[in-house]
Amino acid sequence: VLARTPGAPPGTKGISLFIVPKFIPTDGGAPGERNSLHCVSIEHKLGINGSPTCVLAFEEATGWIVGEENAGMRYMFTMMNDARIHVGLEGMGLAERSYQQALEFANTRRQGRAVGAAKTDSSLIVEHPDVRRMLLTMRAFIEGARALLFANTAAIDRSHHAPDEATRAAGEERAALLTPVSKAFATDLGVELTSIGVQIHGGMGFVEETGSAQHFRDARITPIYEGTNGIQAMDLVMRKLPLRGGGVVAEYFGEIADTVQATAAAGLTDISAALDSARSDLEAATDHLADLENPNDALAGATPYCRLFGLVACGHYLGRQAVVAAKSADDPWMQEKIAVANFYATQLLPQTRGLVPAVTAGAQQLFDVSLAAAGT
Amino acid sequence: VLARTPGAPPGTKGISLFIVPKFIPTDGGAPGERNSLHCVSIEHKLGINGSPTCVLAFEEATGWIVGEENAGMRYMFTMMNDARIHVGLEGMGLAERSYQQALEFANTRRQGRAVGAAKTDSSLIVEHPDVRRMLLTMRAFIEGARALLFANTAAIDRSHHAPDEATRAAGEERAALLTPVSKAFATDLGVELTSIGVQIHGGMGFVEETGSAQHFRDARITPIYEGTNGIQAMDLVMRKLPLRGGGVVAEYFGEIADTVQATAAAGLTDISAALDSARSDLEAATDHLADLENPNDALAGATPYCRLFGLVACGHYLGRQAVVAAKSADDPWMQEKIAVANFYATQLLPQTRGLVPAVTAGAQQLFDVSLAAAGT
Repeated sequence: VLARTPGAPPGTKGISLFIVPKFIPTDGGAPGERNSLHCVSIEHKLGINGSPTCVLAFEEATGWIVGEENAGMRYMFTMMNDARIHVGLEGMGLAERSYQQALEFANTRRQGRAVGAAKTDSSLIVEHPDVRRMLLTMRAFIEGARALLFANTAAIDRSHHAPDEATRAAGEERAALLTPVSKAFATDLGVELTSIGVQIHGGMGFVEETGSAQHFRDARITPIYEGTNGIQAMDLVMRKLPLRGGGVVAEYFGEIADTVQATAAAGLTDISAALDSARSDLEAATDHLADLENPNDALAGATPYCRLFGLVACGHYLGRQAVVAAKSADDPWMQEKIAVANFYATQLLPQTRGLVPAVTAGAQQLFDVSLAAAGT
Repeated sequence: VLARTPGAPPGTKGISLFIVPKFIPTDGGAPGERNSLHCVSIEHKLGINGSPTCVLAFEEATGWIVGEENAGMRYMFTMMNDARIHVGLEGMGLAERSYQQALEFANTRRQGRAVGAAKTDSSLIVEHPDVRRMLLTMRAFIEGARALLFANTAAIDRSHHAPDEATRAAGEERAALLTPVSKAFATDLGVELTSIGVQIHGGMGFVEETGSAQHFRDARITPIYEGTNGIQAMDLVMRKLPLRGGGVVAEYFGEIADTVQATAAAGLTDISAALDSARSDLEAATDHLADLENPNDALAGATPYCRLFGLVACGHYLGRQAVVAAKSADDPWMQEKIAVANFYATQLLPQTRGLVPAVTAGAQQLFDVSLAAAGT
C-alpha cells in the first residue's frame, strides 16, 4: 500500500510503501491477531472480473514500511514503467485471442454466397472480401504491434544486461522512447481489434456465450490503467522526443529509413514506397512539434501523434519481417508474412496522412468551444 | 414470426409472416386455450439487457398468416429499411448520452495541472487539451452524423408526403442512397464515441456504477443488427451507387460542391478548402469503384468507402450549419457551431486521405493470405 508516512511534515509528499498483512505476525512469524484491514465493497466492473477491485479500509491498521521512508512514489514508477509494457501486451494478447476465435468462426459459419460460388451454395463467411478485410486488419496490426512490444522489451533487456555501458545506455534510451507508444498504441488497438472480433461473429458476438464479447470488455481497461493513453501521449511528446536533444528519436527514424532501403533492395517496392511516405509524415510531424513554443500546442497534438508514431513503427517492423521472409520464397508461411506486410503498407499505413493535420493544428481550436457543463 | 408457409412447394422460399398469440382467441376474441409457444432460454448479452433475447419454440403452435401468403420476406424488408435509420439514431443517441455524462464528469473531476494554472492548483480535466480533443471529437461527430440522419429521414418524409411525384421520387432515391451510410457510419461511431466517453471517465468509466460503460456495451449491437455494417457497405457500393446510372450519387455530390462554394462565400475558407479536398477524395474513389469489372474488387473496398462517404457527408452538413451560423456572428451558440465545424474540417475530415488507398486496393491482397482455421 502507498500511503502518507506517519509524522511526515505537513505540505510535503511523504509517501512510503507499506506492507499491511491481514494477520499481524507473532514473534515466531506465524499469523497472529487480526489486523484492522477490511474489504468494504467490491466494484462491479465492465470486464477483468477475474481480478476483483475493492475498497479497502485501513483505519487503525498496522503496517511496515518497505524499503526507504518516503520513497514510495519512486518505487511506484519502477513498477509502472514495467507495467506499461505488460498492459500493452495485455491489449495485444486479448486481440490475438479474439482473432483466433473470429478466424475459427469465419471458417465455420456459412452466410450469403461469395462471388463465383455455385447458385445453391451457402458460402463460409471467410470467403467474403469484407470479412477477410476484418481478419487481415486484426492480423496485420497484431503482428506489427507485437513486434513493437518485443523490440521494446528487448531494449529493456539490453539496458539491464548488455556487457558494455554504451549498449546499456542505448537500450535505456530506446525503451524510454518506445514505452509510451507500446502502451497507448497497442491498447487502443486492443479495443478496436476485439471490437472487430465481435463484429465478425455477427449477432453471436453480442452473446456472452461465444466469449468474443468478454475480450472486448476486458480490453477496455487497458487504455485506462497504468497511465491513461492521453498521459502516454503527453509523455512521448513532452519528455521522450526531447531526449538527448532529439537524438534518441532521430536514431530510431534512421532505422526506419534503413528499412525503407532494405525493403527496396529486397524487391518489396510497394512496402518501401508506403513506408517512406509514412516516415516522411512522421518526421514532418515530429519537427513541427519540436518547434512549438506554447506547450499547449504540443499537448493538443499528442494523441494523434502517438497514433501516427505507432502506425509507422508497425510498418517498420512488418517491413523488416518481410525482408527476412523474402529470402525464403518457397516457404508458404514466409510468403504470408510478406502478404500481410503488403496489405498493411498499402491499405492501413496510409492512415498517417489523415492524422498529420490533427497533430499540427495546435490548441486554439480546442479552446474555441467552451465545453462548460450542460447545466452551466 | 417469419416462417415457412405450410404446404409451400419444396425447394421454394415460401416464407410468410405469422401472428402467433400466447393464448388462442375464442370466437368472441377473448384469450382462450394456451398456444403451444414457449420461451426455451434467455441469452446473456453484452448489452441492451432491457430488451431480452430468447429462444422461442413453436412446435405444434397455431398461427395466422398476416397479409399475403409467401410475402414474408418483402414485409421484412419494409421493416428493415426503417429499422436501419432507427439503429443509426440509436448509435448517435447512445453517443450523445455518453457525451453529456463525459462533459459533466470533465467539469467536475480534478487531476493534474493545466498549462498556466497556479502551482498549487489541481485542474479540472476539461482544461487539459487532450481531454478537450476527446470531447470535441465526440461533439463534432455527433452533430455531423445527427444531421446526416435527419437529412435521411427528411428524404423519407418527402418520398411519402411530397405533393408532386418528382419530389417524391427524388426523396426515395436520396433515402435509398443515404440509408446504408446513416446506419453503418453512425453505429460505428456509436461504438467509437462511447468508448471515448468511457476513456474520459478514466478508471471510473470502467466501473458500471457511472453508467458510461453501459452505453459502450449497448452501442456494440448497433453495427451488427438490422444488417451488419459490412452488408450496409455492400448495399451502398453494389446497389446504391449504380442507381439511375450514377445520377443519384452525382446529384448528392453536386450539393456537397454547393456547400464548398457557400462556405467560401461566407468567409469560412478553412472549411471550404478541407471539404473540397475531401469531396475530391470521395469522387475519385467513387469513379474508381464504378469502373471495376470484378465485383470482388468493389466488395473489397466497400467498408472503407462507406466510412469515407460518411466522413464527407458529416463535413457537408457541418459546413451548411456553419454557413447559417455565420449570419449570426453575435450569438455565442452560433459561434460554437462554427468552431465545431472548423475543428471537424481541419482535424477529422482529412482522415479521408488515409482511406482512399484501402478503397482502391482491390481484392487480390485479401486473398493472398489463406486465412484457414488454425487447426487446418
